[in-house]
Amino acid sequence: MLRWLTAGESHGQELIAIVEGLPSGIPVTLDRLRADLARRKLGYGRGARMKFEQDELTLSGGVVHGKTLGSPVAVRIGNTEWPKWTEVMGVEPLAEDLPGRGRSAPLTRPRPGHADLVGMQKYDFDEARPILERASARETAARVALGAVAKAFLEELGIELVSHTLAIGPVRVPEGAALPVPADVDALDADPVRCFDAATSALMVAEIDDAHKEGDTLGGVVEVLAYGLPPGLGSHVHWDRRLDSQLAAALMGIQAIKGVEVGDGFETTRRRGSAAHDELYRQDGVISRETDRAGGTEGGMSTGTVLRVRAGMKPIATVPHALHTIDVATGEDAAAHHQRSDVCAVPAAGVVAEAMTALVLANAVLEKFGGDSVGETRRNLESYLAAIPEALRTGVVNADGVQV
Amino acid sequence: MLRWLTAGESHGQELIAIVEGLPSGIPVTLDRLRADLARRKLGYGRGARMKFEQDELTLSGGVVHGKTLGSPVAVRIGNTEWPKWTEVMGVEPLAEDLPGRGRSAPLTRPRPGHADLVGMQKYDFDEARPILERASARETAARVALGAVAKAFLEELGIELVSHTLAIGPVRVPEGAALPVPADVDALDADPVRCFDAATSALMVAEIDDAHKEGDTLGGVVEVLAYGLPPGLGSHVHWDRRLDSQLAAALMGIQAIKGVEVGDGFETTRRRGSAAHDELYRQDGVISRETDRAGGTEGGMSTGTVLRVRAGMKPIATVPHALHTIDVATGEDAAAHHQRSDVCAVPAAGVVAEAMTALVLANAVLEKFGGDSVGETRRNLESYLAAIPEALRTGVVNADGVQV
Amino acid sequence: MLRWLTAGESHGQELIAIVEGLPSGIPVTLDRLRADLARRKLGYGRGARMKFEQDELTLSGGVVHGKTLGSPVAVRIGNTEWPKWTEVMGVEPLAEDLPGRGRSAPLTRPRPGHADLVGMQKYDFDEARPILERASARETAARVALGAVAKAFLEELGIELVSHTLAIGPVRVPEGAALPVPADVDALDADPVRCFDAATSALMVAEIDDAHKEGDTLGGVVEVLAYGLPPGLGSHVHWDRRLDSQLAAALMGIQAIKGVEVGDGFETTRRRGSAAHDELYRQDGVISRETDRAGGTEGGMSTGTVLRVRAGMKPIATVPHALHTIDVATGEDAAAHHQRSDVCAVPAAGVVAEAMTALVLANAVLEKFGGDSVGETRRNLESYLAAIPEALRTGVVNADGVQV
Amino acid sequence: MLRWLTAGESHGQELIAIVEGLPSGIPVTLDRLRADLARRKLGYGRGARMKFEQDELTLSGGVVHGKTLGSPVAVRIGNTEWPKWTEVMGVEPLAEDLPGRGRSAPLTRPRPGHADLVGMQKYDFDEARPILERASARETAARVALGAVAKAFLEELGIELVSHTLAIGPVRVPEGAALPVPADVDALDADPVRCFDAATSALMVAEIDDAHKEGDTLGGVVEVLAYGLPPGLGSHVHWDRRLDSQLAAALMGIQAIKGVEVGDGFETTRRRGSAAHDELYRQDGVISRETDRAGGTEGGMSTGTVLRVRAGMKPIATVPHALHTIDVATGEDAAAHHQRSDVCAVPAAGVVAEAMTALVLANAVLEKFGGDSVGETRRNLESYLAAIPEALRTGVVNADGVQV
Repeated sequence: MLRWLTAGESHGQELIAIVEGLPSGIPVTLDRLRADLARRKLGYGRGARMKFEQDELTLSGGVVHGKTLGSPVAVRIGNTEWPKWTEVMGVEPLAEDLPGRGRSAPLTRPRPGHADLVGMQKYDFDEARPILERASARETAARVALGAVAKAFLEELGIELVSHTLAIGPVRVPEGAALPVPADVDALDADPVRCFDAATSALMVAEIDDAHKEGDTLGGVVEVLAYGLPPGLGSHVHWDRRLDSQLAAALMGIQAIKGVEVGDGFETTRRRGSAAHDELYRQDGVISRETDRAGGTEGGMSTGTVLRVRAGMKPIATVPHALHTIDVATGEDAAAHHQRSDVCAVPAAGVVAEAMTALVLANAVLEKFGGDSVGETRRNLESYLAAIPEALRTGVVNADGVQV
Repeated sequence: MLRWLTAGESHGQELIAIVEGLPSGIPVTLDRLRADLARRKLGYGRGARMKFEQDELTLSGGVVHGKTLGSPVAVRIGNTEWPKWTEVMGVEPLAEDLPGRGRSAPLTRPRPGHADLVGMQKYDFDEARPILERASARETAARVALGAVAKAFLEELGIELVSHTLAIGPVRVPEGAALPVPADVDALDADPVRCFDAATSALMVAEIDDAHKEGDTLGGVVEVLAYGLPPGLGSHVHWDRRLDSQLAAALMGIQAIKGVEVGDGFETTRRRGSAAHDELYRQDGVISRETDRAGGTEGGMSTGTVLRVRAGMKPIATVPHALHTIDVATGEDAAAHHQRSDVCAVPAAGVVAEAMTALVLANAVLEKFGGDSVGETRRNLESYLAAIPEALRTGVVNADGVQV
Repeated sequence: MLRWLTAGESHGQELIAIVEGLPSGIPVTLDRLRADLARRKLGYGRGARMKFEQDELTLSGGVVHGKTLGSPVAVRIGNTEWPKWTEVMGVEPLAEDLPGRGRSAPLTRPRPGHADLVGMQKYDFDEARPILERASARETAARVALGAVAKAFLEELGIELVSHTLAIGPVRVPEGAALPVPADVDALDADPVRCFDAATSALMVAEIDDAHKEGDTLGGVVEVLAYGLPPGLGSHVHWDRRLDSQLAAALMGIQAIKGVEVGDGFETTRRRGSAAHDELYRQDGVISRETDRAGGTEGGMSTGTVLRVRAGMKPIATVPHALHTIDVATGEDAAAHHQRSDVCAVPAAGVVAEAMTALVLANAVLEKFGGDSVGETRRNLESYLAAIPEALRTGVVNADGVQV
Repeated sequence: MLRWLTAGESHGQELIAIVEGLPSGIPVTLDRLRADLARRKLGYGRGARMKFEQDELTLSGGVVHGKTLGSPVAVRIGNTEWPKWTEVMGVEPLAEDLPGRGRSAPLTRPRPGHADLVGMQKYDFDEARPILERASARETAARVALGAVAKAFLEELGIELVSHTLAIGPVRVPEGAALPVPADVDALDADPVRCFDAATSALMVAEIDDAHKEGDTLGGVVEVLAYGLPPGLGSHVHWDRRLDSQLAAALMGIQAIKGVEVGDGFETTRRRGSAAHDELYRQDGVISRETDRAGGTEGGMSTGTVLRVRAGMKPIATVPHALHTIDVATGEDAAAHHQRSDVCAVPAAGVVAEAMTALVLANAVLEKFGGDSVGETRRNLESYLAAIPEALRTGVVNADGVQV
């Protein structure tokens, strides 16, 4: 079982993450993690912070000479702005006679759509700083770093992930558009909004420009695809062992996500049964599905076709023309604190969703196949596939998008 | 922490469920559980099995004289058809010379949209019986029984749940329709499709009639509402402690669910930020939200407004005019097994979703407030609310749907 | 990962247990479970209840035709005395005008050494019945039933367990006495105190007779051995993945256990390092240990030699010449309730310890080897052993007690 | 629920630990953590490494201005020797043409009593370095740092811990010796072996000198006491919720621990029932226990008397006059690697055991009382104690060792 924790505040010294339970022998390099951290900053419509926020990355446990040891893997991502924040976010108690809490004024105008107000109630603070520092999506950098390790593990097993942008605000990729495969990732990352459909991409950029001009923000929908999954990850035998349940938790656990779909999701609910499932045919000697409406799961298990999950992100809650709130220090009407100038973070959310999906899949692989070294896990996976009787054999859509 | 497991096969002797971690003093009666089990069978469009499937209910642990003891609560739901199944589903090894596996022919035509095929691959069976017996939605009866216990606990704290049908196939309750409150539950249960909007209900019934005539099936969308939740259940500090993440897992963990939304969900992703969040105002001396677009959570925590979550159900996969499949015994094309004649299970899915939501909320309450007796949990909850400084106080929408 | 829960009260209708996470294909029969339940009642020095307490066993989930399905396995153990207890332990609320709580007087004299007093404080009861009903060691029957399933799984992998009595009160098997192997289990079960050393067994019986005469009770020490374990179960990488840590929790989690040892345990703490470890030699082409002081684990992992763990049980706390207590109804001095007449339950504790050990080992096997069918787990185990390079190969002490 | 993970290798750049689930408002300072890290190095008989191993401590998450935020707390402990190890333990892949793995020769002579050999088998390494780096007791520094945070939390609730040395090799504190209270901690830390009995301390030092002279090593027994615990932590209702079970796992999960006892432990198993339990009397208006044979737990729950648990440590396995092993590179007989020159680590093990106990107790407190701020947890604890009916009230032995 994979266990992982992240720690760290948005303007604190660093983010820290540990993942426990990975096998030995996974190839992990700083460059690989840095690449995914850089991808997390992609996207037209991001504000200034993304630019200065260079990530100082340290791998301080579990990896030696480019390979995992089987011990917990620890990652640190330094905050390059930390020198400016040592007073506000310092660890040591403040001298009694210091005015205020470090240099910053208390944040007493909780922002709608954020954890601010309820966090203050729950954790007993009279200002929002201690809440928003942790609730910030900056924390997803830690997840992306761990996700990069999980992806490196999955790749050793022939499993590769792709994320892309399906919608920004009301602008959406047309139904039936082609799905990107792993070979398309560089092109996707080069697209301003990580959209695989060029015409839609241009409309999305225009939508972002328009929202920016209006002092407004946008949400959207991202999709994650996994290629090369063997059939049988997850299980139907108990609800919390279902792969779809675990994926839903992982995606809904990302900041600002308000909806999750597997396969065609809510669209499926509007279809009739005769047109909603993936019929089975024999093709090239194996049982095949000609459609993937289900998104690669049946009965809560991967089927060997492309896994396809979606996350819907609400518009950024820190809206330039500020939302109405109350200053809790005075009880007066106020405009919400406004700290960030992003218009849209959807393209980056795809990268975070990819990381979360990778962590779920890595766990599911270990649950089914065990293994304390990559070689052992791979051997177990391969012998499982080989042992499926010919009469039951289905294809697996591999990382080239081809059923084998 | 609440832990719970269910066991039992669809045509086995009984379903069994245990929930561990509930406090003492919760009023639990067989009648209460039976009532929810009966509600799970509601809904126009259900087939014959729902009628004969009378639930023989036993509470065999954790409850004495109508109150929980604090020990694990165990529930059994007998299968009244068991005498017909003792051979096919018998526990003891079959005599060597018996033909077949009990009376039934092997189920070798895996049904698309079900766990059948991938389950056979994963668990190494050459027919689908050992898979579909557990994958069947019959298992949700066990969850509904446990959910009834969780609801009894929540009611002691002033928290009440309502579920209703939002959509069946393409027929959907209009945007902006009124939300039902706990007092409406009887009326909802009396509606043929558990829909709170009478005009839409009639359209849904017509849609079911039409699908039935066509030999087809339908899915839809249900919504669960929770009234009386205190602010601060769940947490922003780690992804898997977010209430929305836990709710997403719980709902997606129900058979046939393909999408989950919190609040306005995917609709929110199409709005601009200025119209997507719940602004804060001072009203009647407390901080209030005039909208509930977020569905009662911010930063992964309950806010005190109405919690609102949705689950999208695919059409029943056992379609009367059968789907295409392969007979794995012969390798030939075949029509999928067809065992059930329901057209639509959406109204019942609301009751299951309600149970899953109740279990998540009961766990969240215990995580925040602890307590080994209902009195202790209630005392801790009340003292928490009382200790929130006046400047931070928000309203809680109670079980009458009124903010207090 | 194996998850399991038990439920049920000592004089309730039945005990219930569910275990989730076992693979398909494990041979499980009612007879096998009944045999272990009968072994749990063995032992000179047990009182009357053991005799009448016939276990009505039902396997109501997860097993069909003598094999597991991969779904949760559920077991029920009926209380044959239930008809006498329907009033005192009835599930339904009592009529308002009934005197007392059913027929029995409130148990207001909490027994020292039991959960009674602190349980009443914690769970808010004014008498001990609601506490002692669950705290009773009767609950271990449920564990033994699940343990029998776990043992059936382990046997499919060549792993077999033996438990025996090391000490009763001050009477202890001499240092250096031979260890029983699986073939000795029948002889052990036939011994009045499940002791493998005949001379010591006779002394133990005499000690029990003496304590009985004195109106007193006895504790002792049991040991569980596991043969056929592959090297590498558990892990050194995190404290809670250590096999010894998990075994300690499992054994200390049995009622009345106050101490746990792995291998020579506390005796080892008195030795010097040069005589405390198991040196490595090459023998018959594999690396061998000539001693097993460590009890079959190094670095929290199984080594392939015999696993050996011990549990120390306190004397039965319900002492015939009753302990001093307070009647909480009156505040007066009192003699503790006295409900049972066992002198010594140590021989049975070995059977319970065996069950707990089996559950831990089954979980450890699944963590390392995965597998959803017994065949898959076995294949993964065998290919792991085969893949260990010749230079690192060690022997495994098999179920015949022979290193292979 | 408290969750925590540690990461890092013995000669890696640093150790990292994260604990998730603590409330806000716990006073935490670097000095406090440093003090416990220094205490972990105490003890006559430690070798050179303890001296140079200065801990560079960083608190990089979850604490601002001396108080926890409620978010995960992260700790880093730098390795001051890291510059010497950057090649051997470097994270980046080695250049292809580099001879060997960094500067060090492969460690091919697995040490008996260590994880070396079985770790190589399990994780598929041909030398022991990747195993011993993580298996090393250096990792306990991370636990001690987290334990210091847990202790800070417990102190806010009036709960204080003391650890002391009960035995070194065969030298043991006499039965019936006085127990240290929190006020004695400084004196204990000043004692060369952290023993509370001066005469025994001198004998222990002599024993260490003798073992040192002989080129041998020593183990022993430590005891942890907790004062100020309320009754009712843990639970009798399920085995893994028992406080004693959780403590056993925590202590057995420390490197080199082979035995665990609660209260009088194995000594209790030799007594008769009439002299083995803690009888109840009324004293000063509350129910009192005059003895504490049980070690402060009944039915797996804290009773309010002093909690008392013990851990037995085997002698250090790296014995100066080296143990016999096999060089796995050559298959030849060899002497085990010898890297450390400690004679005895028992005094330090007490500090580690204290940390593990603190983490278990902090978790148990949160399970029972909940709370997201220290104030909330304290309020819930106090209102629980106040609500215990007078007839059931027992004393709590406070941090001064006085029952109140």
